[in-house]
Amino acid sequence: MLEQFKIPDASAVRVHHTALRKTTTVMFEKAGVPPDHALIAADALVRADLRGVDSHGVSNMLRVYLDHCKSGEINPRPNFKVLRETPSTANLDSDTGLGLVAAPKAMEMAIRKAKDIGVGMVTVCNGRHLGMASYHAMMALDHDMIGVCVTSAASTVLPTFGSVPRLGTNPIAVAAPAKREPPFVFDAATSVVAGNKIAIAKRLGINLPGGWIPDDKGVPIMEEVVPPTTTYSYPAILPLGSTREMGSHKGYGLACVVEILSGILSGGGYGVVPGRPYFYHMVAAYRIDAFTDIDGFKSMMDEFLQTLKETPPSPGHDRVLAPGQLEWETEQERLANGIPLHEEVIQWFQDACNKMGIPYILE
Amino acid sequence: MLEQFKIPDASAVRVHHTALRKTTTVMFEKAGVPPDHALIAADALVRADLRGVDSHGVSNMLRVYLDHCKSGEINPRPNFKVLRETPSTANLDSDTGLGLVAAPKAMEMAIRKAKDIGVGMVTVCNGRHLGMASYHAMMALDHDMIGVCVTSAASTVLPTFGSVPRLGTNPIAVAAPAKREPPFVFDAATSVVAGNKIAIAKRLGINLPGGWIPDDKGVPIMEEVVPPTTTYSYPAILPLGSTREMGSHKGYGLACVVEILSGILSGGGYGVVPGRPYFYHMVAAYRIDAFTDIDGFKSMMDEFLQTLKETPPSPGHDRVLAPGQLEWETEQERLANGIPLHEEVIQWFQDACNKMGIPYILE
Repeated sequence: MLEQFKIPDASAVRVHHTALRKTTTVMFEKAGVPPDHALIAADALVRADLRGVDSHGVSNMLRVYLDHCKSGEINPRPNFKVLRETPSTANLDSDTGLGLVAAPKAMEMAIRKAKDIGVGMVTVCNGRHLGMASYHAMMALDHDMIGVCVTSAASTVLPTFGSVPRLGTNPIAVAAPAKREPPFVFDAATSVVAGNKIAIAKRLGINLPGGWIPDDKGVPIMEEVVPPTTTYSYPAILPLGSTREMGSHKGYGLACVVEILSGILSGGGYGVVPGRPYFYHMVAAYRIDAFTDIDGFKSMMDEFLQTLKETPPSPGHDRVLAPGQLEWETEQERLANGIPLHEEVIQWFQDACNKMGIPYILE
Repeated sequence: MLEQFKIPDASAVRVHHTALRKTTTVMFEKAGVPPDHALIAADALVRADLRGVDSHGVSNMLRVYLDHCKSGEINPRPNFKVLRETPSTANLDSDTGLGLVAAPKAMEMAIRKAKDIGVGMVTVCNGRHLGMASYHAMMALDHDMIGVCVTSAASTVLPTFGSVPRLGTNPIAVAAPAKREPPFVFDAATSVVAGNKIAIAKRLGINLPGGWIPDDKGVPIMEEVVPPTTTYSYPAILPLGSTREMGSHKGYGLACVVEILSGILSGGGYGVVPGRPYFYHMVAAYRIDAFTDIDGFKSMMDEFLQTLKETPPSPGHDRVLAPGQLEWETEQERLANGIPLHEEVIQWFQDACNKMGIPYILE
């Protein structure tokens, strides 16, 4: 059934990632973002497209970010300030700048601290949407470190037994390097499903599977259901686990953990208060050789990931995937053959480049 | 339906926590555990009983630990060695000593490091079962720190689309202090349910709800089912999320994260390899004032937890619980009125004290 949620590829035009990155960079610059920041933001967006996480790539997010730069919701030229710092920690005020830039800056600090003393952990307040969380976690990989990124989002998720949203979809991303295998990359909302999946279902006119959303009294709907009409881009969502019997208190609790480590620990706030901005982040880097031998770690990661992949599959499935494997495979394919963009998106790029007076270089 | 999984209280005898802790301490000493270690182990066990986590308290676990001390599976007098250390990290070889003791020792190190430089993170290899994971995370609370504890367990959980277990129930515990509210304490397996819940169902002869276990080919059973007969104390379990559509790849991925942060980062191994011991741990402490003002943090935690608790409940439920709230309420009640132990457990204590030649002081 989940196959339906993929937007069909047929009408897509393939665009080379370099061209897409270049055009996106120039568009960010035109929106007032300094060139060095524009480069980082474009790379984060295009990396999502490369990895098949289209929901967080150019087609879905670029126009939102550009609109927000224009409206002032996002500050294109933020003044990042370190509010508090210790040898292993920092709290960064990102001055409502692009989360696509603030999170990598925070991660750079975390990596530097981990290099110096083993572990680095940086919170970000006054934040904005950071795109694909695993982009930031994956920055640790080249440094032989484990990377972590969590971020809080608008209140759309019900607590277990609750009838109204109190938490964001609050994703957790963790990346760990291997030797010969693609790296382990976990990146998932703590809700049963990401909000944009429901938005896509609404757009495509398909039903939602049971266990995704509650009825208007907060009771989990466990049968297939037509996506309800809502003012927000998607309706309330159930926490991972769907019902108390199937462990929804775990998804709910994990969402709280993210809220605490990003929103509250950064001194910012938590998502549920209306009108209060809600994008707070926490990134961390753990230096592997602060704990154990790097080569031994990576070899054991290979063995672990292979063991997972070699698990005999259950009926109806041809293989078991390691976390991040599908995204890695998509990245290899799209690096070689280009990123598929829909005609509508191509058209938007042409129009936007025209309006901004910049060369259209996607073809 | 989950109410059935509580062992009925009717036949229970109430025992004061001080007496229970004292007797348990002496029993550990008689099993060869040094007095200072015995005190810690008894406190960890009795804290689980106080908080209503009976599965990890004296009735369920003490005899296992004592048996293992006797059989050599647990080394009662371990020689803890720090294998590697940086200002913010360490890797501790716990020499197959009681996890109930090794994890607090590791957490003490993490807290000391966090005091010094902001964050402390300690892995434990050559480990054994550490009891209730939140016991160790909660050690951070009195130091105005956030505490974390994760631990890997025997391979009983299926990866998404897999037909055989590849991961442990691998719990995650996180504790964060509040001001007037009870602290936030999250402690949950990354599987849909803890293994012992299934063991209890088997003992009580009740059915399992849908979404807990797969059939023998790995297909999730989504209807109520009789617990199957198994050689291990419980059958294979589904990851949190139960099915791919409801996000089981998230529970699966989180279980992998625990395996990596405890088993692989400590240089130990991961649970799936038969014959290889599988209890590896990671504990961490984050000093709140390394990021933000402590008083501000705690006040905001109060506000956050109150907001969760004041969520209008959905039909059939009288309230929404904050993570750790129920355990805190149980602890207050049991501190005042004693810990309920079943006649069978009381009888076991009498017999065991007799055999060990120690005074029986539970009454």
